[in-house]
Amino acid sequence: MNKSLLIVAHGSRRAASNDEVRTVAARVAAAADGRFTRIACAFLELAPPSIPEGLTGLIAEGAEHIVVVPYFLAAGRHVTEDIPAEVARVRGAHPGIRIDIAPYLGTAHLMPELLLQMSEPAPRADPQPR
Amino acid sequence: MNKSLLIVAHGSRRAASNDEVRTVAARVAAAADGRFTRIACAFLELAPPSIPEGLTGLIAEGAEHIVVVPYFLAAGRHVTEDIPAEVARVRGAHPGIRIDIAPYLGTAHLMPELLLQMSEPAPRADPQPR
Repeated sequence: MNKSLLIVAHGSRRAASNDEVRTVAARVAAAADGRFTRIACAFLELAPPSIPEGLTGLIAEGAEHIVVVPYFLAAGRHVTEDIPAEVARVRGAHPGIRIDIAPYLGTAHLMPELLLQMSEPAPRADPQPR
Repeated sequence: MNKSLLIVAHGSRRAASNDEVRTVAARVAAAADGRFTRIACAFLELAPPSIPEGLTGLIAEGAEHIVVVPYFLAAGRHVTEDIPAEVARVRGAHPGIRIDIAPYLGTAHLMPELLLQMSEPAPRADPQPR
């Protein structure tokens, strides 16, 4: 079963911010250890690819199940309405493909540990986690 | 030595988003296991307390060393210019207090693992760390 992951960020007018998201997606791919066939990113606005473009790209590559992870810290309108609306459009066009929306990043169980890790003196010696 | 942590978020017109940051700060405090005397949050704009208010509040409570962690996913102007400028104002007024700015959240080593964890089916069975 081709299960793929789409990391969805807001998108920025600042190209470097969008590139940071692309880099995070590449780091997730390196850490995924076979959990997903393909890992990509998409943007709600201001940068390509859009969410429908990202989803249809994965479907064109054979995805049968796609998990969308919102790369957002708070449950604003983007998370509660805009991303689900974009995903719903693609679900309607591809009824045979399962597309799930995961909880947004800000709810991660590991977030407190992450923030404590950020607060430790650099260089942080912890190895790249799997 | 009183070492305290200030989690700095952007701030939102949406009160629930600011409350999410306050909740994250409380979760960090619960997970900190004595690494910090006090843990608080502050906002760059749109919500209280401001960064100077947050810092001076911790100083009033006895902080001698404060670590500021930017709760931001990308290195935009807020991270590179605005937060350092606010911190610099307080450093100038309190030269005896050490205030460090940690790397921003988006650079966390654990971020790929966090995103992979978000993508797993709910309910996520992993225990609250620490």
